[in-house]
Amino acid sequence: MSQEIHKGLVIIYTGDGKGKTSAALGSVFRALGHGFRVLVIQFFKGDWPIVFGEIESAKFHSHLEICQLGKGFVKIMGDKKPFTEHKMAADEAIAFAKKKIFSGDYDLVVLDEVIYAIDYLDVRLVNLKDVLEIIEKKPAKTHLILTGRNAKQELIDRADLVTEMKEIKHPFQKGVQAQKGIDF
Amino acid sequence: MSQEIHKGLVIIYTGDGKGKTSAALGSVFRALGHGFRVLVIQFFKGDWPIVFGEIESAKFHSHLEICQLGKGFVKIMGDKKPFTEHKMAADEAIAFAKKKIFSGDYDLVVLDEVIYAIDYLDVRLVNLKDVLEIIEKKPAKTHLILTGRNAKQELIDRADLVTEMKEIKHPFQKGVQAQKGIDF
Repeated sequence: MSQEIHKGLVIIYTGDGKGKTSAALGSVFRALGHGFRVLVIQFFKGDWPIVFGEIESAKFHSHLEICQLGKGFVKIMGDKKPFTEHKMAADEAIAFAKKKIFSGDYDLVVLDEVIYAIDYLDVRLVNLKDVLEIIEKKPAKTHLILTGRNAKQELIDRADLVTEMKEIKHPFQKGVQAQKGIDF
Repeated sequence: MSQEIHKGLVIIYTGDGKGKTSAALGSVFRALGHGFRVLVIQFFKGDWPIVFGEIESAKFHSHLEICQLGKGFVKIMGDKKPFTEHKMAADEAIAFAKKKIFSGDYDLVVLDEVIYAIDYLDVRLVNLKDVLEIIEKKPAKTHLILTGRNAKQELIDRADLVTEMKEIKHPFQKGVQAQKGIDF
């Protein structure tokens, strides 16, 4: 293995299986070990009355910012918020992402669930063209990780690395509830 | 989401795509945020002249131990070590894993690449029955994450959650080398 070529990769973790956000956070954990400056923007998380492990863990790392800019999942899991509230939050999250990424201040940026936000279950909170613009204009050195189900071909075409997380077996199928430290 | 039921899950990240170890490390990152005691045993990593991000990052977390007990990959990537050297290291890693897991001292244990070590490319460093024994006898509260390609059906049958990481696109295909902060 060599570190000679430094190219900021565009990485996509998609698919219906568990592990997309986890894989992004694992990359974050590694990157922090190398002194990278890291930003994580979460597009759905936010406004939930639970303690997220990643938020607590981030407190140990001065080079990591995690911003939960969402208003919870949309149209599922008891969501009753007006759509405009989700949409405004997503617009702000995208504007924030552009400003931060284009500043060149970060070595790694994760846009968590942004792919889901583009087009999933008729939830269209984020425009594909905004994400394409981020990929196109990001600083060359910056690694970008995008997560979420149902990645559009236009995104896959522009990514360097795409992994589909395929669900083989999931405990929610058997009624086991979300587990602290594993699911959040 | 609820935290009412606490059941230590057995989680498998398998498949040929990137993201298995990353997803495990992301779960570690989350779990540390909840104050979990975490142990990561890496079955191939070790003896490599590179700085691993996860090792450096672990220094910020007193509840995390990462043990690299391998001797590098086997039969690939320039490996010239006698097989017995790999086998002895794997035997010690399994014995160490059992002792640590059965002690009940950990809330989450990751056996990284252990699945690959069972049976991949004719590399049989770890006996399946030892891993089945770990699953069977682990403390009920302990979450266990196993990673590696080519998971045996016996493991899948005993797991609560299985995700296959499927490679859709990988930069190594285009000759881009492993990237610091992303691949290690």
